[in-house]
Amino acid sequence: LSVAIKAGKVRAPTHIISTICDDRGEEATYAGVKMSTLIESDKGVGDVISLLWFKRSLPRYCTKFIEMCIMLCADHGPCVSGAHNTIVTARAGKDLVSSLVSGLLTIGPRFGGAIDDAARYFKDACDKGLTPYDYVEAMKKKGIRVPGIGHRIKSADNRDKRVDLLHKYGRTFFPSIKYLEYALQVEKYTLTKANNLVLNVDGCIGSLFLDLLVSSAMFTQQEIDEIVEIGYLNGLFVLARTIGLIGHTFDQKRLKQPLYRHPWEDVLYTK
Amino acid sequence: LSVAIKAGKVRAPTHIISTICDDRGEEATYAGVKMSTLIESDKGVGDVISLLWFKRSLPRYCTKFIEMCIMLCADHGPCVSGAHNTIVTARAGKDLVSSLVSGLLTIGPRFGGAIDDAARYFKDACDKGLTPYDYVEAMKKKGIRVPGIGHRIKSADNRDKRVDLLHKYGRTFFPSIKYLEYALQVEKYTLTKANNLVLNVDGCIGSLFLDLLVSSAMFTQQEIDEIVEIGYLNGLFVLARTIGLIGHTFDQKRLKQPLYRHPWEDVLYTK
Amino acid sequence: LSVAIKAGKVRAPTHIISTICDDRGEEATYAGVKMSTLIESDKGVGDVISLLWFKRSLPRYCTKFIEMCIMLCADHGPCVSGAHNTIVTARAGKDLVSSLVSGLLTIGPRFGGAIDDAARYFKDACDKGLTPYDYVEAMKKKGIRVPGIGHRIKSADNRDKRVDLLHKYGRTFFPSIKYLEYALQVEKYTLTKANNLVLNVDGCIGSLFLDLLVSSAMFTQQEIDEIVEIGYLNGLFVLARTIGLIGHTFDQKRLKQPLYRHPWEDVLYTK
Amino acid sequence: LSVAIKAGKVRAPTHIISTICDDRGEEATYAGVKMSTLIESDKGVGDVISLLWFKRSLPRYCTKFIEMCIMLCADHGPCVSGAHNTIVTARAGKDLVSSLVSGLLTIGPRFGGAIDDAARYFKDACDKGLTPYDYVEAMKKKGIRVPGIGHRIKSADNRDKRVDLLHKYGRTFFPSIKYLEYALQVEKYTLTKANNLVLNVDGCIGSLFLDLLVSSAMFTQQEIDEIVEIGYLNGLFVLARTIGLIGHTFDQKRLKQPLYRHPWEDVLYTK
Ligand SMILES: CC(C)(COP(=O)(O)OP(=O)(O)OC[C@H]1O[C@@H](n2cnc3c(N)ncnc32)[C@H](O)[C@@H]1OP(=O)(O)O)[C@@H](O)C(=O)NCCC(=O)NCCS
Ligand SMILES: CC(C)(COP(=O)(O)OP(=O)(O)OC[C@H]1O[C@@H](n2cnc3c(N)ncnc32)[C@H](O)[C@@H]1OP(=O)(O)O)[C@@H](O)C(=O)NCCC(=O)NCCS
Ligand SMILES: CC(C)(COP(=O)(O)OP(=O)(O)OC[C@H]1O[C@@H](n2cnc3c(N)ncnc32)[C@H](O)[C@@H]1OP(=O)(O)O)[C@@H](O)C(=O)NCCC(=O)NCCS
Ligand SMILES: CC(C)(COP(=O)(O)OP(=O)(O)OC[C@H]1O[C@@H](n2cnc3c(N)ncnc32)[C@H](O)[C@@H]1OP(=O)(O)O)[C@@H](O)C(=O)NCCC(=O)NCCS
Repeated sequence: LSVAIKAGKVRAPTHIISTICDDRGEEATYAGVKMSTLIESDKGVGDVISLLWFKRSLPRYCTKFIEMCIMLCADHGPCVSGAHNTIVTARAGKDLVSSLVSGLLTIGPRFGGAIDDAARYFKDACDKGLTPYDYVEAMKKKGIRVPGIGHRIKSADNRDKRVDLLHKYGRTFFPSIKYLEYALQVEKYTLTKANNLVLNVDGCIGSLFLDLLVSSAMFTQQEIDEIVEIGYLNGLFVLARTIGLIGHTFDQKRLKQPLYRHPWEDVLYTK
Repeated sequence: LSVAIKAGKVRAPTHIISTICDDRGEEATYAGVKMSTLIESDKGVGDVISLLWFKRSLPRYCTKFIEMCIMLCADHGPCVSGAHNTIVTARAGKDLVSSLVSGLLTIGPRFGGAIDDAARYFKDACDKGLTPYDYVEAMKKKGIRVPGIGHRIKSADNRDKRVDLLHKYGRTFFPSIKYLEYALQVEKYTLTKANNLVLNVDGCIGSLFLDLLVSSAMFTQQEIDEIVEIGYLNGLFVLARTIGLIGHTFDQKRLKQPLYRHPWEDVLYTK
Repeated sequence: LSVAIKAGKVRAPTHIISTICDDRGEEATYAGVKMSTLIESDKGVGDVISLLWFKRSLPRYCTKFIEMCIMLCADHGPCVSGAHNTIVTARAGKDLVSSLVSGLLTIGPRFGGAIDDAARYFKDACDKGLTPYDYVEAMKKKGIRVPGIGHRIKSADNRDKRVDLLHKYGRTFFPSIKYLEYALQVEKYTLTKANNLVLNVDGCIGSLFLDLLVSSAMFTQQEIDEIVEIGYLNGLFVLARTIGLIGHTFDQKRLKQPLYRHPWEDVLYTK
Repeated sequence: LSVAIKAGKVRAPTHIISTICDDRGEEATYAGVKMSTLIESDKGVGDVISLLWFKRSLPRYCTKFIEMCIMLCADHGPCVSGAHNTIVTARAGKDLVSSLVSGLLTIGPRFGGAIDDAARYFKDACDKGLTPYDYVEAMKKKGIRVPGIGHRIKSADNRDKRVDLLHKYGRTFFPSIKYLEYALQVEKYTLTKANNLVLNVDGCIGSLFLDLLVSSAMFTQQEIDEIVEIGYLNGLFVLARTIGLIGHTFDQKRLKQPLYRHPWEDVLYTK
């Protein structure tokens, strides 16, 4: 574009470029698809996400997988950072958006952000043909925990139901689950180290999303790299948890809870 | 509770009360329903919202309506306040959550917040048995525009497709659409004043949601009042638009857009 | 303006109007004053606030009062909502701006927002010539607590040092302290009801700021009303506490604190 | 601590540790200093920042420098990302905190965040004894622009007044300005490349703050490294610009500006 402008071919350069939604016509379109078409052809929330984020209509097994991820990550109780900050803000008498946002801002490297990293590292290791042993030991040398592996409570004998559900779905409906298989190989090796080093839900979503991108045959290699690099999968968690954080806000308002003040006794005042 | 504590019946009072999601057991539950049950019985995103916000399983025609609202409000182009701020923040090189949040914070009385008000006013007028004439003229006297009525571009001869789609859905699947009918009566009257005073999408969602709450027979009168007062329906727009704002963030990052600076020529510097 | 545009008198209407800072020239100006002038004439932070918020240079006793308010409200420990949410976000590994903002969003009716209300109500009552008795009893009838009155811990025998410091400053340097005197009369009456119904720091700042606006003789009546209505004084608290919230973020990062998770035992999971 | 807990030496471990402000006593203290002491000894905003961020009382020439930075960075017109988003949010009818926060979230690598990077790189290069030539050429090879160098409009013949003011202050009042001198050497070299590759205000603040930390002789080497690594200097810009963003919010509310909608003509809708 800037070349075209410099060359004088474009007369009035615009300041904003946008490609996902056009609201100028009779009816807004999502990546070129009219809203009425979406409703009339019985599409769902997963299709809208697929159009607005990935700019294409994905097959039903993909959009349903997206919806499953949203359902499974929608909430995880009041104790995690996000829900906690939302609850504190709602109890300070603030509006819905402020309460939601105060919680969303805690999402990051330590809370909710392991899906993208799991995808990045599994993809890199698998594409390079590293054996699980080589991959895990290389990470150990770098002092990085394998993202997508490990759980506080779950273990080989007490598996996370969500992982089972996703695994089963992928195995049944995906044309291929190369990356999930790789992740399971990694788990097999880490389980020889400790019983709780299972493939966790983040690792499962991360690897299966790679399989979705590849096996749907609707993305070029470059597009897949871009998706992983920009970090779309984090977006899945952010959107999903928005449902829960809004729920917690309503909950506190219904319960008419007063201003929260953290108890003095729980603070170590030091130098 | 505080009475029980004072009476010494509760030993260790807690600082937080929470009712929507229990993460203590084997598997987290949403309003008492296990995640695996949700997936196995082929539930969708609308069911999760229904459990986490309304604390009950709503029938399919309700959860599908919720999903339709989310689909229809997911985005409306890059020019509206929310998308614009998200775009500016993404172009400042900030992360996904910061970009999303900067846009969400514009949602309020003038952008995206007319659904709740439409529900509040239509409910009040309809329950009081006001004729459309009485209601509209009373609002005029108070100097308040009728929420849910009016559109910049659409008119009686050029109707908003989204309103048609929702209207048709409600008429086909809802047991009763008393409030929508009332809203349409109001429109009939306002159209005698000006051709663009149509029932808009906010008014359509607001009135139909009242019909959902009443006709499902799953809410007490008091619960309905609480939902309208707290403003749950705003939550629908906030959640829906989160999809679009995340989409705009990815879009700008894909396009590698540089820092946005508003043009000096577009600013009137005055005293 | 819009009339002028319609009349064709203004050719290219701008979309943004701005009056506080002009960055087009050699050197940016704050309300017309050059930065170098500010530094060379040994002005301070209070002068910058006075120019950017009130659009005029206030006398030294005023800008020093503004600085005192900022100093006294800069922080109040880690237990209050704002600091708590900032701490939780910093411990989730998020950046400075996200941590700060997550805390700022809790500021509102129940935390940090009593200064404006105190000013609004004291002004109204004093201007109407209500006796303290009439004012307090009228509030009681309306079921509203007198803003600026009352404290959890402080009492008539154990006064808040900050109130004393501000009171002393106002009495010494302000040309007149009509509103503070009124607030003290109100306190005199409420103390006959309970020993802890003292004038608190919010009430003291709120009433003294009214005195500043009036006694400086630099604001019209209409300008004062606008300042109180828009709620500038809340801004003082927001700015002040920004110092503390940034401090708490650095503190947690220095201490390398891990992800915060609220303890299960402190939550009442119920229906 | 965790060792002590495991060893059973600490009985009731706390969940929060905090070191900057103690609110448990009669009067809150900032890093051990009572508020009344601060006011009575005529301290200012710079002293409060110094206590809450750096946990020590810095000499007057330091706290005054901090105040100068805040004054000079308080605002830079309505066109920059931060002010623009704040203006859009205020025009959407949102409250002060939401408007402020929407703008703050744009602060980062491309807007307002060059101070820390300038300090980091100048410190590293200077400590390693790199000549300006070696440093600049090494950066060029890595494809990184020298932070703190370069300006859109200013040049060797048309210098930024703020840089002059800060430079003069440092030269007059700082015991030593080793890092600023180094930065000026770098500028000398970059100016041989292009006339606009001047030391900019971010570079000037960044290098002078290093001089402050070192020359005050109040910080250990490790503490200085920590300050630069955590990124305190970004905090200076964030706090300063909070003044301006609050000012822009009041400005739009005073002007009663309507909802902002970006003009369609300024958007390139593409694929
Ligand atoms: C999820 C997680 C935090 C649980 O950790 P935990 O049960 O508290 O584990 P601990 O910190 O007590 O570690 C126990 C041992 O297992 C090791 N370990 C834990 N997770 C590991 C991983 N992902 N890769 C390699 N080793 C791991 C630890 O290094 C430690 O070994 P050590 O005692 O020799 O140092 C952790 O497994 C992890 O960080 N995983 C990677 C990030 C991730 O996927 N997070 C998703 C959760 S939302
Ligand atoms: C949507 C809306 C902003 C469009 O407004 P607009 O086309 O710019 O309308 P204008 O401001 O030019 O008003 C044109 C006339 O119609 C009237 N009007 C517009 N909307 C009205 C309403 N909802 N109720 C009553 N009268 C209305 C105006 O008062 C005006 O009459 P006047 O010229 O005698 O003063 C407006 O209809 C409105 O505010 N509706 C209510 C809020 C709402 O539902 N918003 C949802 C949109 S997301
Ligand atoms: C600051 C405050 C929350 C402290 O409250 P508290 O010590 O917890 O007081 P309680 O809620 O236990 O109330 C004790 C009694 O004093 C009364 N009271 C407390 N504050 C009052 C006020 N501002 N005006 C009138 N009555 C008041 C209460 O109504 C109650 O009377 P009751 O037992 O007959 O109902 C309270 O005084 C208040 O809300 N003040 C107004 C808002 C304000 O200025 N806040 C600034 C603090 S940042
Ligand atoms: C401030 C800044 C954005 C101004 O940039 P600009 O005037 O738009 O400069 P341009 O992008 O047109 O670059 C002009 C040339 O100068 C070079 N240049 C600009 N800044 C440079 C720097 N800091 N170091 C080295 N070279 C630089 C560019 O590489 C370019 O050379 P080229 O044409 O051979 O590629 C830029 O100097 C910069 O990024 N500085 C570093 C970051 C910084 O300090 N920002 C503070 C501003 S708040």
